[in-house]
Amino acid sequence: MRHLLTSDRRKIYPVNPKAAEVLGIQAYDSVVNIPGLVDLAVIAVSAPQVPAVIRQCAQKGVRAAVVVAGGFAETGEGGSELEANLVKVAREGGIRFIGPNSMGHADTFSQLSTLAWMGEITPGPVALLSQSGNLGHRILHNGVSSGLGFSKFVSTGNEADLHLEDYLEYLAQDENTKVITAYIEGLREGRRFFHLAKEITPRKPIIVIKAGGTKESAKAAMSHTAALTGSDAVYAAAFRQAGVIRVDDDDELCDLVAALLYQPLPKGNRIGILTIGGGMGVVAAEASEREGLEIAQLAPSTIEKMDAYLPPRWSRGNPVDMAGISMAENPATFSVLWALIEDENLDAVLLQAPVGFDAKRLSSIFNTSEIKAFRQAEESNLVLLGQRVREYGKPVFMVKPAVEFVNDPEVSSLFRREGIPVYPGPQRAARVLKHLVWYRRYLNAVA
Amino acid sequence: MRHLLTSDRRKIYPVNPKAAEVLGIQAYDSVVNIPGLVDLAVIAVSAPQVPAVIRQCAQKGVRAAVVVAGGFAETGEGGSELEANLVKVAREGGIRFIGPNSMGHADTFSQLSTLAWMGEITPGPVALLSQSGNLGHRILHNGVSSGLGFSKFVSTGNEADLHLEDYLEYLAQDENTKVITAYIEGLREGRRFFHLAKEITPRKPIIVIKAGGTKESAKAAMSHTAALTGSDAVYAAAFRQAGVIRVDDDDELCDLVAALLYQPLPKGNRIGILTIGGGMGVVAAEASEREGLEIAQLAPSTIEKMDAYLPPRWSRGNPVDMAGISMAENPATFSVLWALIEDENLDAVLLQAPVGFDAKRLSSIFNTSEIKAFRQAEESNLVLLGQRVREYGKPVFMVKPAVEFVNDPEVSSLFRREGIPVYPGPQRAARVLKHLVWYRRYLNAVA
Repeated sequence: MRHLLTSDRRKIYPVNPKAAEVLGIQAYDSVVNIPGLVDLAVIAVSAPQVPAVIRQCAQKGVRAAVVVAGGFAETGEGGSELEANLVKVAREGGIRFIGPNSMGHADTFSQLSTLAWMGEITPGPVALLSQSGNLGHRILHNGVSSGLGFSKFVSTGNEADLHLEDYLEYLAQDENTKVITAYIEGLREGRRFFHLAKEITPRKPIIVIKAGGTKESAKAAMSHTAALTGSDAVYAAAFRQAGVIRVDDDDELCDLVAALLYQPLPKGNRIGILTIGGGMGVVAAEASEREGLEIAQLAPSTIEKMDAYLPPRWSRGNPVDMAGISMAENPATFSVLWALIEDENLDAVLLQAPVGFDAKRLSSIFNTSEIKAFRQAEESNLVLLGQRVREYGKPVFMVKPAVEFVNDPEVSSLFRREGIPVYPGPQRAARVLKHLVWYRRYLNAVA
Repeated sequence: MRHLLTSDRRKIYPVNPKAAEVLGIQAYDSVVNIPGLVDLAVIAVSAPQVPAVIRQCAQKGVRAAVVVAGGFAETGEGGSELEANLVKVAREGGIRFIGPNSMGHADTFSQLSTLAWMGEITPGPVALLSQSGNLGHRILHNGVSSGLGFSKFVSTGNEADLHLEDYLEYLAQDENTKVITAYIEGLREGRRFFHLAKEITPRKPIIVIKAGGTKESAKAAMSHTAALTGSDAVYAAAFRQAGVIRVDDDDELCDLVAALLYQPLPKGNRIGILTIGGGMGVVAAEASEREGLEIAQLAPSTIEKMDAYLPPRWSRGNPVDMAGISMAENPATFSVLWALIEDENLDAVLLQAPVGFDAKRLSSIFNTSEIKAFRQAEESNLVLLGQRVREYGKPVFMVKPAVEFVNDPEVSSLFRREGIPVYPGPQRAARVLKHLVWYRRYLNAVA
């Protein structure tokens, strides 16, 4: 209720038979005694009381509800009966509801959150449907701290009435949503999901974590949201056919969303790697090859261009090892980067060079005006980078050479502004590129 | 040189034919003109000049050197000749050296660092040998920021004279080193490495990243440190036979080191999972099963104990879903955790519950004295946890339910003090446990 009160744009009526007021606001002993119209009921009573409250809501003319209580189908037979009764009562009363066993939902554009936990969700273009409230929470937090913004979130709970497929159908046409993400344990309407997804993915990417693919995790899913997890292989094949991108965890999900939102899809799988040091090139090349990417030969004209910027001992191949000359203040980094973006043999570039250096660190070597000059040069180069990425239609990812890069909030916001995703290591970047390559191929095939 | 000057325990003689002084210290035009004895020469001149400098060092009676310059065997034929000549000159003069193409080395106990970059390496029991300076830098930084301390670091460079195997032989008997880690592209003396490793691993764990296992990454390794990467399958088999633990990246390396240093090895692969929510249990169970761990049945006595702490709707199985009742201030979390540690069906426990909450966040709900009481309770419970881990010989890992847990520096230091590793997600924790299980089996087999 505290979170619901953060906006003046709505009226909140607490309902509690034992309290005259809640958080300083007059309370009612029953929904039916509320004076105004009620658009949405958030039902946070214990499971056995829910059907009676739903009946009162129906009497009051409420059409929508969020049922927070657990203790329904996920607990076994008795709970299943209770849940069936809840659905019956809601249908009779013409009420559609989220849950039960839901943590609530949020819409950042109307600033409505029925979540009990903090409502500090940055508004943005990502929708999240989650068959786990806590994992949804986790994905939201990780997303927000990595710079993503969210449009809608639903903790779908047991999906006794509204199914994940209903939310998906809605999000397909929601203009505030550009990418749809979901944590799925089991689909109630698998066939409908895949028909919907097939229609949506040519316009909006859908990214899913599908859990419960092993024996004990499937059992855990059953006792969590009464979900039948189904055959993992069947799900995998169906996702592929519908253009749905499947990821393993929340890091991969957030990594991929950042690239899908702000970077072009690569025309192919040939990548160029620009590194501060040879070992990083070896590791980045290995990670990329393991994800099915190709470390392409550089065009002779690219090598020629680079000869002008780099010392004679540079690797003269891909990965491009800058042979230790590259420092934050060295303009060669960006000259080399432009050459890679222009190279017709390459579809995407991983940049693991010392760009985005922490001002605090540089301050031990350079004075304030020098650092200011580096930062300004960096800023205009990052603006150019954003332009070139769009112009050439080639994604460029920043891979941090070490933990101290792109940690400076000023630097992170520069990268964010230009839509350049920053990944902590080459494995993470290569994994994202693999998905982008696959998705582009899928789109070409169904176009 | 700046870093070398941070300690008073040694005398530094700059050598530069063009400068009378360097950083305010009298410089000499040649090593031979230095008045005192010289224990170590750090040679940072360009490649073609190195042999002449080595000759002067020999004349001066220097026995050890670090050769920083690149431009030797890694650049092709001409460089290989230069390197052969360098080795010949050094042998004639009785000088052993690190490099060439090395970034330097560091010993945190004598506070000696020949690294050009920052020397802020926390002293501790981890040694790192790296065939890439930059990757070594990366591993050191990631390690230090995750709470690890290092004893020795060597950027081995081209290994023209001293080989990775030489450093390994030394570390085997170094009392300051409890765990040996390495980034390897190719071994010069594979057979010797494996003989040494076989002797060492029963006493000290060896963890390696072996790169260059794919086509283009192998080529990149050749142009990086002139390393022949060899067959990946041969390396993999040899590592297994010698008890060497192979990891994929620096995150996995640091994750594993923390567990090896401060946690017991599990007796088997049966794990218990304690989660704040059902979805997290599903994902943690899946991640664990995919790593070959067993989500064991709880003993009936454990279920009985838990019935007393948890609401009737708890999952009554493994993973233990605390059914949403668990909050930072709820003592049930630890009661349940003790029951899992005591359970004879379990060899290890993943704790993904809201322990280690951020004081700032709690401050919106609780007052200062309440928060202080939670923190005190948490602290004494974490002390108990450290004791029980040792008493039962079962590793317990904290898995962050979301980014905001165990971020509070006060909380992180509590976990660190008790040796409880904190991982950002269940995949990372499961990966570590897999290695611990394997290593324990290896040790049992060779005992």
